[in-house]
Amino acid sequence: MPAVRIVTEADLRAAVALDLDAVACVERAFAALTGGGVVMPPILRLDIAEANGEVDVKTAYVPGIDSFAIKISPGFFDNPKLGLPSVNGLMTLFSAKTGLLEAVLLDNGYLTDVRTAAAGAVAAKLLARPDARRAAVIGAGLQARLQLEALALVCPLESAAVWARDAGKAAACASDLSERLGIPISPAPSAEVAVEGTDVILLTTPSPEPLVKADWLRPGQHVTAMGSDAEHKNELDPAVLARPDVDYVADSLAQTRRLGELHHAIAAGVVAADASFPELGAVVTGAAPGRASPDRITVADLTGTGVQDTAIATLALSRVTRAGAGSAFET
Amino acid sequence: MPAVRIVTEADLRAAVALDLDAVACVERAFAALTGGGVVMPPILRLDIAEANGEVDVKTAYVPGIDSFAIKISPGFFDNPKLGLPSVNGLMTLFSAKTGLLEAVLLDNGYLTDVRTAAAGAVAAKLLARPDARRAAVIGAGLQARLQLEALALVCPLESAAVWARDAGKAAACASDLSERLGIPISPAPSAEVAVEGTDVILLTTPSPEPLVKADWLRPGQHVTAMGSDAEHKNELDPAVLARPDVDYVADSLAQTRRLGELHHAIAAGVVAADASFPELGAVVTGAAPGRASPDRITVADLTGTGVQDTAIATLALSRVTRAGAGSAFET
Repeated sequence: MPAVRIVTEADLRAAVALDLDAVACVERAFAALTGGGVVMPPILRLDIAEANGEVDVKTAYVPGIDSFAIKISPGFFDNPKLGLPSVNGLMTLFSAKTGLLEAVLLDNGYLTDVRTAAAGAVAAKLLARPDARRAAVIGAGLQARLQLEALALVCPLESAAVWARDAGKAAACASDLSERLGIPISPAPSAEVAVEGTDVILLTTPSPEPLVKADWLRPGQHVTAMGSDAEHKNELDPAVLARPDVDYVADSLAQTRRLGELHHAIAAGVVAADASFPELGAVVTGAAPGRASPDRITVADLTGTGVQDTAIATLALSRVTRAGAGSAFET
Repeated sequence: MPAVRIVTEADLRAAVALDLDAVACVERAFAALTGGGVVMPPILRLDIAEANGEVDVKTAYVPGIDSFAIKISPGFFDNPKLGLPSVNGLMTLFSAKTGLLEAVLLDNGYLTDVRTAAAGAVAAKLLARPDARRAAVIGAGLQARLQLEALALVCPLESAAVWARDAGKAAACASDLSERLGIPISPAPSAEVAVEGTDVILLTTPSPEPLVKADWLRPGQHVTAMGSDAEHKNELDPAVLARPDVDYVADSLAQTRRLGELHHAIAAGVVAADASFPELGAVVTGAAPGRASPDRITVADLTGTGVQDTAIATLALSRVTRAGAGSAFET
């Protein structure tokens, strides 16, 4: 039996960064997802109500990639009270030819953070106006930070506003990001003020109630809603999807109909359950149009897909192997 | 972050054997499954047709067990041509309080083999006649061997017959088992001859066509059908479940309705889709009767459950930890 490589978070952080390589890797994954032959089963989800915990397991086989990842993401939301992070987990990588385990990536969720932010960059690159200069960030958690960093990779960002329910966290997040990106970033007193006059709106919360109203949006804006990865999460007013000037794009239509913002628009009766929308991968390959005109409003609904996990895990393992990092276990 | 323990197959084999401890561990798991509070999501399944491969991911949260396992089982059926085993995989174990990864058990399917065979022993212990002395084994693979070994733990076995499509393999399996168990075990010329005059019939194949006919069964026999863990597998004539003298028990009714022998009886129209049957756990706890009389025919339909994985992985980790085996990885 071939050896299994065990890789720690530190080695993975050294190997893979949130940069244009990661964005290109995830962009290719979306193209593959739309190209046919991908097998991406429904997410396995385990809920442990007693511990306020949930676990998602995602996977995808992508023709042309020699390995497939199975990613396990626990989220236990009382952990911060214990001084532990809410989100953890690991990725496992298997040969797509033999099913043999190739690697265990003990990333504690790091690779998920990167591939999730990279998907935001892909969406903004394809859907935001090329001259997008000002962004609003709703939320002040890790993805609030990473999504804005990812956006800065693909847009000529000049400033941003941050709003979160907790004003102190929003101020800290704005300050961190301003230092990191070298542009003025300020906290906003309300979500409405935050989005006003912006080109790109990044929704990064687990909110169960819409935070951005349909009539706040203006022609030319782009919205990336990446917080809704479960049935009860809903950041965007369902009425947004009913606006005639809105073009909606899903990461995976099968998932967003069940889990994403689209799910809530269908539930609210403003979109038909079988209404068809382009997927991000089709925009990547050119099979579907991206932004049709400077005046359209674009919405990317990102629930997180197994193809992103397979793509980023494969990139990580190839780099780690090249660097000779990780420990080989004979099994 | 606490360290993660990485454990190899060799250390797991040293820690956990197919013995009465393993049977008791799996028996408690079935009792828990019936006791309420268990969360066991549907199996995640990835099919890679190009490689004749499939992957099952199973999990279960069991109240009272501090950890939960997520078990990944790839089966790639062209592997033997490459000199590799078909079935592989690993188990991961997480804290049920915090979701933090506790251990990666690189068992290559060994713990699954043990817990699967142990479930057969639980079924036979509860459903076979206590004086069961003669067994038939259909199939000549690893589970054919392990199921008979497990049966010998709970029944006063005196002899057995083995039938498989490949007569050479059946003869080798019979010879191996005879040596191992110290009783006469012979290959049979047909499945019908194999089951004739036996007390317990063990079905251990991935056959897509029934191998045992309804009118071959005699009063007092017990059948464990453990090969059907996917929609297309079917070892037992669906008409068996329509016999008035048959008592049917499922490991998980939700699963056997979808994957097991029951699924084929429903599809054949001999059992109603919503017909209710006891689960093995209810027989363990006494909530459902086991064998009602010496003349009944009992059938246990075993598809494999996540609670077995959580139970055996927890047992393995506790023993490995006590023995100081495995490698601790700071993540």
